[in-house]
Amino acid sequence: MKILVVNGPNLNLLGDREKENYGEVTLESINADLRALASEMGVEIDFFQSNTEGELVDKLQSAKGNFDGIIINPAAYTHTSIALRDALLAIKVPAVEVHLSNIHAREEFRKTSYTAPVCIGQIAGFKKDSYLLALRAIVNYLR
Amino acid sequence: MKILVVNGPNLNLLGDREKENYGEVTLESINADLRALASEMGVEIDFFQSNTEGELVDKLQSAKGNFDGIIINPAAYTHTSIALRDALLAIKVPAVEVHLSNIHAREEFRKTSYTAPVCIGQIAGFKKDSYLLALRAIVNYLR
Amino acid sequence: MKILVVNGPNLNLLGDREKENYGEVTLESINADLRALASEMGVEIDFFQSNTEGELVDKLQSAKGNFDGIIINPAAYTHTSIALRDALLAIKVPAVEVHLSNIHAREEFRKTSYTAPVCIGQIAGFKKDSYLLALRAIVNYLR
Amino acid sequence: MKILVVNGPNLNLLGDREKENYGEVTLESINADLRALASEMGVEIDFFQSNTEGELVDKLQSAKGNFDGIIINPAAYTHTSIALRDALLAIKVPAVEVHLSNIHAREEFRKTSYTAPVCIGQIAGFKKDSYLLALRAIVNYLR
Amino acid sequence: MKILVVNGPNLNLLGDREKENYGEVTLESINADLRALASEMGVEIDFFQSNTEGELVDKLQSAKGNFDGIIINPAAYTHTSIALRDALLAIKVPAVEVHLSNIHAREEFRKTSYTAPVCIGQIAGFKKDSYLLALRAIVNYLR
Amino acid sequence: MKILVVNGPNLNLLGDREKENYGEVTLESINADLRALASEMGVEIDFFQSNTEGELVDKLQSAKGNFDGIIINPAAYTHTSIALRDALLAIKVPAVEVHLSNIHAREEFRKTSYTAPVCIGQIAGFKKDSYLLALRAIVNYLR
Amino acid sequence: MKILVVNGPNLNLLGDREKENYGEVTLESINADLRALASEMGVEIDFFQSNTEGELVDKLQSAKGNFDGIIINPAAYTHTSIALRDALLAIKVPAVEVHLSNIHAREEFRKTSYTAPVCIGQIAGFKKDSYLLALRAIVNYLR
Amino acid sequence: MKILVVNGPNLNLLGDREKENYGEVTLESINADLRALASEMGVEIDFFQSNTEGELVDKLQSAKGNFDGIIINPAAYTHTSIALRDALLAIKVPAVEVHLSNIHAREEFRKTSYTAPVCIGQIAGFKKDSYLLALRAIVNYLR
Amino acid sequence: MKILVVNGPNLNLLGDREKENYGEVTLESINADLRALASEMGVEIDFFQSNTEGELVDKLQSAKGNFDGIIINPAAYTHTSIALRDALLAIKVPAVEVHLSNIHAREEFRKTSYTAPVCIGQIAGFKKDSYLLALRAIVNYLR
Amino acid sequence: MKILVVNGPNLNLLGDREKENYGEVTLESINADLRALASEMGVEIDFFQSNTEGELVDKLQSAKGNFDGIIINPAAYTHTSIALRDALLAIKVPAVEVHLSNIHAREEFRKTSYTAPVCIGQIAGFKKDSYLLALRAIVNYLR
Amino acid sequence: MKILVVNGPNLNLLGDREKENYGEVTLESINADLRALASEMGVEIDFFQSNTEGELVDKLQSAKGNFDGIIINPAAYTHTSIALRDALLAIKVPAVEVHLSNIHAREEFRKTSYTAPVCIGQIAGFKKDSYLLALRAIVNYLR
Amino acid sequence: MKILVVNGPNLNLLGDREKENYGEVTLESINADLRALASEMGVEIDFFQSNTEGELVDKLQSAKGNFDGIIINPAAYTHTSIALRDALLAIKVPAVEVHLSNIHAREEFRKTSYTAPVCIGQIAGFKKDSYLLALRAIVNYLR
Repeated sequence: MKILVVNGPNLNLLGDREKENYGEVTLESINADLRALASEMGVEIDFFQSNTEGELVDKLQSAKGNFDGIIINPAAYTHTSIALRDALLAIKVPAVEVHLSNIHAREEFRKTSYTAPVCIGQIAGFKKDSYLLALRAIVNYLR
Repeated sequence: MKILVVNGPNLNLLGDREKENYGEVTLESINADLRALASEMGVEIDFFQSNTEGELVDKLQSAKGNFDGIIINPAAYTHTSIALRDALLAIKVPAVEVHLSNIHAREEFRKTSYTAPVCIGQIAGFKKDSYLLALRAIVNYLR
Repeated sequence: MKILVVNGPNLNLLGDREKENYGEVTLESINADLRALASEMGVEIDFFQSNTEGELVDKLQSAKGNFDGIIINPAAYTHTSIALRDALLAIKVPAVEVHLSNIHAREEFRKTSYTAPVCIGQIAGFKKDSYLLALRAIVNYLR
Repeated sequence: MKILVVNGPNLNLLGDREKENYGEVTLESINADLRALASEMGVEIDFFQSNTEGELVDKLQSAKGNFDGIIINPAAYTHTSIALRDALLAIKVPAVEVHLSNIHAREEFRKTSYTAPVCIGQIAGFKKDSYLLALRAIVNYLR
Repeated sequence: MKILVVNGPNLNLLGDREKENYGEVTLESINADLRALASEMGVEIDFFQSNTEGELVDKLQSAKGNFDGIIINPAAYTHTSIALRDALLAIKVPAVEVHLSNIHAREEFRKTSYTAPVCIGQIAGFKKDSYLLALRAIVNYLR
Repeated sequence: MKILVVNGPNLNLLGDREKENYGEVTLESINADLRALASEMGVEIDFFQSNTEGELVDKLQSAKGNFDGIIINPAAYTHTSIALRDALLAIKVPAVEVHLSNIHAREEFRKTSYTAPVCIGQIAGFKKDSYLLALRAIVNYLR
Repeated sequence: MKILVVNGPNLNLLGDREKENYGEVTLESINADLRALASEMGVEIDFFQSNTEGELVDKLQSAKGNFDGIIINPAAYTHTSIALRDALLAIKVPAVEVHLSNIHAREEFRKTSYTAPVCIGQIAGFKKDSYLLALRAIVNYLR
Repeated sequence: MKILVVNGPNLNLLGDREKENYGEVTLESINADLRALASEMGVEIDFFQSNTEGELVDKLQSAKGNFDGIIINPAAYTHTSIALRDALLAIKVPAVEVHLSNIHAREEFRKTSYTAPVCIGQIAGFKKDSYLLALRAIVNYLR
Repeated sequence: MKILVVNGPNLNLLGDREKENYGEVTLESINADLRALASEMGVEIDFFQSNTEGELVDKLQSAKGNFDGIIINPAAYTHTSIALRDALLAIKVPAVEVHLSNIHAREEFRKTSYTAPVCIGQIAGFKKDSYLLALRAIVNYLR
Repeated sequence: MKILVVNGPNLNLLGDREKENYGEVTLESINADLRALASEMGVEIDFFQSNTEGELVDKLQSAKGNFDGIIINPAAYTHTSIALRDALLAIKVPAVEVHLSNIHAREEFRKTSYTAPVCIGQIAGFKKDSYLLALRAIVNYLR
Repeated sequence: MKILVVNGPNLNLLGDREKENYGEVTLESINADLRALASEMGVEIDFFQSNTEGELVDKLQSAKGNFDGIIINPAAYTHTSIALRDALLAIKVPAVEVHLSNIHAREEFRKTSYTAPVCIGQIAGFKKDSYLLALRAIVNYLR
Repeated sequence: MKILVVNGPNLNLLGDREKENYGEVTLESINADLRALASEMGVEIDFFQSNTEGELVDKLQSAKGNFDGIIINPAAYTHTSIALRDALLAIKVPAVEVHLSNIHAREEFRKTSYTAPVCIGQIAGFKKDSYLLALRAIVNYLR
């Protein structure tokens, strides 16, 4: 079983970024923890981050046939990208949407998600733990 | 560490209810699985279900001082109850909101949550697994 | 064939209440007329009224397996209760929504019904007669 | 006592039309059943159908002084015709609005009625039975 | 100079119709007064009324080349007819919109006019006098 | 019979102002024409213009008992002043609202009038003629 | 003269609850102060609190004939309960709505009140003093 | 294979009408070009135009069984007629919606189409060519 | 302790004005009663009324350093004046907003207040008594 | 004459993608058919596809001076990209917008197009044929 | 070259007012700095401040013929005054709108400007510097 | 002190592009003028332009630690990019938003800015001068 973790814009800056919303953890440390948990659960895992909507679409398209499940944090594109929604619809690889912060407790425009309705579900608000929970969720779903 | 699991209206009917949205699992089997995981994680767990908004408020109020964390599925009241929101705000016991179905993929009125903004976060769409992930989330949060 | 008649908040006050909207009839006289018509049509009929949303949900849940059809006047909860909608959806007992007054001719907020879309249909505006027509409607539907 | 039954656009096609919403009954069979019930109730009944809003207005105007009550299914014009509303207001003949399908369970734009607020009430969702219930309702109202 | 007076749905009922909004005057008496004023001002005048939107469009189309100005009371179609708007735009004969009642003081949906923006102006609220003022307005405009 | 003509902000600039909307006429020439018509109709007439909402309110208040009718062009305040609406309501002197331009054909925000619903009616779009028609309208109304 | 004080959900927690909005006062101390003022003014006073919408409706219904006036703080139900509005309408006992916090300065959804339009008036923002002012208001109103 | 071309209100005026939106072509010249192309493609073609919504509904109803495909330019009724939508739904004859002008570049209210969602597709903006493209589209679709 | 009472547009007409909303009391009698109560409570009181938004702003600005508290009835400006809101924010003198009528039970546009969110609280609906309650409220607040 | 065909995000996946909306055709087969038709019509044709909004903007910019006309299917960017709109406006090369599916019959957010208003027109719903019709449309337009 | 600087309501209080939004600078010090820069740039400059909308309109009107350019901070009237917009339109003297604070980062209602669309441009957020930049902007524009 | 100037989509086309909105200036000439002014003010300046949202995000991220201030014209992305907003928030380098045209005077959708609320301020409408004013603004701010 192979899982792809896709991170959207500005997530490469984690740790530097607004601490009240995202905490001090870095993307590298999240990935390390995910790798450890994946190994423990006996699944392969790979990572991708880009600030460009089109590169995220490219990557999702390439997941078809290569990955069994996807964990995606579309970040800002969650609320504006129909292209990511269409990519997820097209490839039909099961996906879980994650958010570090509780997007339901922030600006009005962060409450709308184009991608969540085409994912299995959404996990938001648990900082680094959102990803680890998502890994458990997607693996359970696939089993 | 003691965790309270609160379930809102119609969740007592699980298994009987619309299968495309909720699957065939019953509330009793969810609770059994939660009890097993809680025991494994070394935490105490208790359960409450009611169809009445005010009884859910009463229960949340009584959690103050008696529980360290809350897992709540407010079901239909998610979208209409300011009273539950105010109760969560008042007691200040950390809470995780869960939903069996992916509420982001259903009717427009199920996309609004009065309670999610006053919880740590929200987990939606993983059927029974939503609760188990929430238990991990709240325990990690409290540790 | 057994029919359950469910009345929501403030309908116990009928006769006392705003006459321009509801007329002078009491709930007891409506029930008496319904009982007479039910007897004439050869069906059993039972009645329930509560001001509490959760008790109405409880009653609807208990109708499953015990009643063949439901006549429901959710009153104020028509416009605010997703819990009643979910209960009707869950139990799958055919239901007819009734209103004494013509809700389409009153305040804007009385034009929205959460429950009508999950009922067979809606009858509104004929005062006591709304219930009697609903009894004919549900019995015809079931036959 | 004389009752006029007015049917709006596309109702002449009944039986041919979308079955999931309207069933297989034809307008002729509805009229036959109405005639039978009217006869049984001792009232006269007459019928009119047109696809043209203005002809429906003409007919309603001519009802003044010639009919004691109206049963109207404005069909598509329910949601767009202020002219029909004004005609009903002008003639002051009591009217009941009927719909074959449960308009509350269909497209958003079918939830608005310009005519219902100026009728006694509305009956929707009971297919052919909507008309028969309406006949009972208008006769009771007039008695 | 030739003026066409066009009246929309239900205006043939004037005098019978809701008195609080329209007063007791009949369409015939309005036309008589308009004919008298037209004669006094030395202009020809003609009249048309229909309850059918399409016939009103037909009549407006025929005005091109035959009339110098139009007085139009589109009544209910004011608020719903893009077809009348398009007809007025197409024929390019100057027109004045009139209303017997003060449409700005009535239901919300009577405040929108599709036709007023393509007329010279609008006169509303002066009952019969609205028409006489409109005749003066269009004649002055054309001179 | 005494009529007060009240003009709101920027109408003192008429002639200078945007010609496509208002034409080249000045406020003085409008007033001269109004005086001539008033004299011909045997009524007294007086004029007031201010750019200040509060002074317009003061003037309207002082009209009570001193004038029999009002012609008011609230200009920009038409769309923003509840104070002028309240003043007209309080003094109960019949008023006619006028506009030089066809406000229904301009910016969206010029389609809302706080004052028209508390006037007898509204005349818009006939440039200088709007005032002369209004004088006829108010005098006819009062007679 | 007998006055009933009705408090809605979570008000039993006062003192514990968010201090920036409600201050440190408890419901018991408010009631004690109200009792003292009532005694000083020579009126009887009674108290009721519930977290359940239906029990609040029950209590309001029972006030008919037993109390001359009502002071009600519907708390969260202010913004969601048509049932409470209908109960107040039905019993016709004069009522004053109170709020501890200035609801006009909080979340958007706290600016809508279903109950205020059917009360004599509303007093909001003066913490404990809101109740004492309301007692004076209702007593003055009844005298 | 037989194709029906249906044109809505004011399209009989083409050539006379607003040139910036519709060009100088007449309806007759469009029909002649359509007839030539139909002949070239080996299909029969017939034409209908009316300014009356109800007559357009009548014609669409009569197409059932007599035509294999429909080209419809509902003109102003595109944006206001649920009756035409219902007629297209009822007859189930495949249809293509055409517009001479680019309706997406005009007034806001021309962006909504009640009929397009029940057609195969929509072609807008190519003046006379919109019809010729539609003929190719419907013939290809049917083959 | 010095209190300033500020009254907005048209309140100088009290007694003359719409009785169903405001009762028959005059501004002078309100001020007399306020003066009596102030004297009884041992506080100084002063009064200001203007129909001009800018003069009300001037007066509020001058209150800084000269008054300890403000009672303000902004009347029509409640719903339209950001300038009054900014003045209250700038001077930081505690203020209570009052209304004679129950603004929550009137037109939709009277439910929005720009000034209430920057006051301590709002008292509405008790006619003259609104002012007397406000005096008690502001004095208690300051003590 | 040279035509550029520009395809937006996920169109490279055609054939794989949701069949109910897009059919089984691949982008390669569309391009082959377009090349054949272009050759038959005696025009040159070139193709570009990208998932990245900025690359689509780059390509459109480079079309200026190199191509006479554009066929563009902006796919998901239709509804979100002002940048593509601005590019089309800047280069002033005539363009036709195409869609495989009938976007008017899908989700609400697919009904808005930022690009259609700056194109000549839009063709939607004819699957592969949408492109072939567009090629005819742009070539006719340019001739 | 002569420039007029117009300041709206509450700007006379600068320095006293909310520091987080406006800083500690006074209007006098802004004017002094503007005078120095004007002198350096070789232009004349004059100043006006009022809390009254009508006086600001009066002043703008008087600028015609006396000033070559205007710098205006309409403050609260930015968002509510159509009268100021009309005055700027009428006088046709080029104007620059300035704001001390970043109005785009404050309350929703501060994001709408009636005046900006009729100015050359808007400068917001640079505190005192907004005015100095505006002076450079207007002088450059006029040269 | 080092300043980065970031330009969004289509700004590389300046001079070619719609002249009524942007004038004839090219991006190169703007940069040359900025370089001259920067040199005069003793600050370093660098330039970046891209049509791709993600590359603009990349560049903003790289500004952290390398630049003291940013001048950004996000062009079309102003109104659609939450990713740019998040990048500006994350890097915490002070930024000024500029626009060549007066965006407040154009299409409705150009009035919303996701980026302005996280910048110091916004300067719009002064064509090339917007950039030069912004350079002065950011340098003053940093000093």
